[in-house]
Parts: sequence; structure tokens; C-alpha cells
Amino acid sequence: MGQKAGSIPTPVVRRLAKYLMHIQGLRKAGVEWVSSQTLAEALGLTSSTVRQDLSHLDISGISKRGYETATLEDVLQRELGGDVVWKAVIVGAGNLGCALATHVPFAKQGFDICGIFDANTRVVGKKVGRLTVQGMEDLPALVRKEAVDIGILAVPVEAAQQVAEQLVEAGVAGLLNLACAHIQVPEGVSVVDAHILENLQELSYLLHASRKKK
Amino acid sequence: MGQKAGSIPTPVVRRLAKYLMHIQGLRKAGVEWVSSQTLAEALGLTSSTVRQDLSHLDISGISKRGYETATLEDVLQRELGGDVVWKAVIVGAGNLGCALATHVPFAKQGFDICGIFDANTRVVGKKVGRLTVQGMEDLPALVRKEAVDIGILAVPVEAAQQVAEQLVEAGVAGLLNLACAHIQVPEGVSVVDAHILENLQELSYLLHASRKKK
Repeated sequence: MGQKAGSIPTPVVRRLAKYLMHIQGLRKAGVEWVSSQTLAEALGLTSSTVRQDLSHLDISGISKRGYETATLEDVLQRELGGDVVWKAVIVGAGNLGCALATHVPFAKQGFDICGIFDANTRVVGKKVGRLTVQGMEDLPALVRKEAVDIGILAVPVEAAQQVAEQLVEAGVAGLLNLACAHIQVPEGVSVVDAHILENLQELSYLLHASRKKK
Repeated sequence: MGQKAGSIPTPVVRRLAKYLMHIQGLRKAGVEWVSSQTLAEALGLTSSTVRQDLSHLDISGISKRGYETATLEDVLQRELGGDVVWKAVIVGAGNLGCALATHVPFAKQGFDICGIFDANTRVVGKKVGRLTVQGMEDLPALVRKEAVDIGILAVPVEAAQQVAEQLVEAGVAGLLNLACAHIQVPEGVSVVDAHILENLQELSYLLHASRKKK
């Protein structure tokens, strides 16, 4: 599997995404410099974590002033591949798929959702924001025509593996998997899982554990 | 912050949730025994990871047969706090909030979404599945009446911290944060972030890195 394509460890990549989002907020507020200490406090991390994370980037801070926010945003964006626009399609036009299709922050961060598909002919033709739900038979042509990079799986568990294969076959290079199932993909295809139910179960574990303590 | 309530490390807890989901599928299919090797292959892990993870639980495998699926499901569910029903409310009745309010797998896994709230008076009164969107002024009373454990934040970044405070003030013990913002909570309150945009950025990093290699 292609998950190991990058050399920066996954938890660091996730924090880099957090830094990017925070820096963008700071820049909007007109802040020109930020120290690792300030970043750490804002994000609930230690400043040594922040410094170690940023050491993966081609940037260095200036003593007492820290990092220039404009440069830091640039460098983070380049490292995360956010300086290009990624084309994505969603499969699954249920509530979750439709919510993601119209999620404004995606477009703002350079993810262009250019199609939404569903195997259920009863939802084909339905309007979702500026898109119209298409049948699965139209997937390969759109992926080719738009040179789609990313497939977003918002289908039930049972359908996840098959839909993943259809997306890979059509030519996407990466999958964001929202179905609570492990999917297998050929070498060279990247998969990132986004399982909200697992996050809820993690929370349930924490609540359960803190009650046991009492 | 209360994130450290449990003694099992977060990555392990997330995998335990994956095992649970998989075991439930196996049980539905009538499978009575499963080996760590089979679990590992199905979930793309090494069998030593599986054995180490399961060593956190009050269960032991039998040589050659592995684990009894019924017992493993029970033990996993108890450890993850999934043997009780957790009451949850959603704040933010946008597309994402509405999608989560009607997400069938949550109810199946013991998460009872018993209310959805929004600060925007224009959406108050709107039907979302069997729920009706309520104004924020009704939040404290419902949290108290239903003894709500979990608040799910599906609000824009700018509103996240304030809404988190309202939920904590109302009495929830845990937050699932879908807003792409770091939120600060008092000691004893657990927070789990579920940032789909960050997952997409992780994917963008992997795609970018694998293209650079070519």
C-alpha cells in the first residue's frame, strides 16, 4: 500500500495541517510573526513538539520573533501539497456525502469536488449544491476527463471495498475513506481513513475510563 | 485537559474500535473463532500489533483457534464503554450536523443523538429525521433532563470555542469536535477531534510526496 509515500510521520503531517489552519487565521487577523511558544499554547501542544514538527520544513525561526506567518503559510502549503488544486469526487450521495459535497472549507483549501455519484438510481439526478448526482457508470469518464486525483468514499460498510476498486480502476490516486471498513488497495494508491464513529468510540472510551476512576 | 483519562494509548484505542467493528461483521456472518493472524490480514496490520493491542484486554486466545468472537466482542465493547448507551447532542444544523443526526451506525453502536441545536433562528424548528432543531437557549435544559454525556460540535471554526464552553457549562463530559479549530476545555472534560479537512490534507501530502518521487 502507498500510505508510506511521504517521509514525514503521519502524526506530524496531521499537526502540520493544524498549524496551517491556525496560521491562516493569524494572517487574516493581520499577525505577521508567531513564536513556537504561541503556536504551542494556541494548539495545546508543547513548544518542543512545535519546534520538532517545523524542523521537517524548509524554514527557520528568528530568535525572539519566531516565524514570519506569510512564509510559514507558504512552506506549510507547499509541503502539504496545498499549493495545487486537487480534484475529488464523492461516491455516496447520502446525508454525509451531500454534506461533504457542499462543505465550503474544502474548496477554500484547494479541494475541488467535481462530481458526486451513487449506485442508487433513485437519487441519480438529484441536485447537491452546484452538482448533480450521477450514476456509477459515469464515474470512469468523469475521472478521466477531469483528471480526478481523489475519491471520497461515503458509502455503507458493505459497499466500501467494491467502490474503492471502481475508483482505483477509474484512475484516482488517493482515497479518503469515511466508511467504517478497512479497504485494500493496490500498491501506489494512498488511503486515509476518516471514521467519525471510531472517534466517537474513542470518546466513549475516555468517558468510561474517567468514570471508572471516580 | 482530560484526554489522558484512559490508560490505553490513543492509537490502540482507535484500533480496538476497528477490531470491534470487524468482529461484529464476522459474528453476523456466523464466524465463531478468529486468529490474530486473520484479524491482522483483514485490517492491514501485523499480527504482533494485533496481539499487543488485545493484550490490553481481559481476554486470552487459545492456541490454533484464536479468540472466540462472541467473547471478544463483549470484552471490546466493555472496554470501549460501548455496553452503555451514550446520550449526545449536536450543535450546528448545517449539512454536516444534519448528516450526523441521521447517521444510522451511531445509534447501532450505542450513541443516542437526542437533540440538535443551532444559533441561527432561521433553522430552528426544521425537522432533521425524528428531531427538530432547537435554539441554543434550550440547550442547558435538554442536557440536564436527558443527562447528556457528549456534545458534537458541527459549527464553523469561529464559533467552536464559544459553543464548546456552552456545552461544558450545560454539563456534557465529552466533546467530539468536527470544527477545524483547537478548542480549550477545563480539566476533566474529554475532547476528540474529527477533522475531515485534516484527513484530506494528509491525503494531499501523501499524493504530493509520491509524485515528487516519480
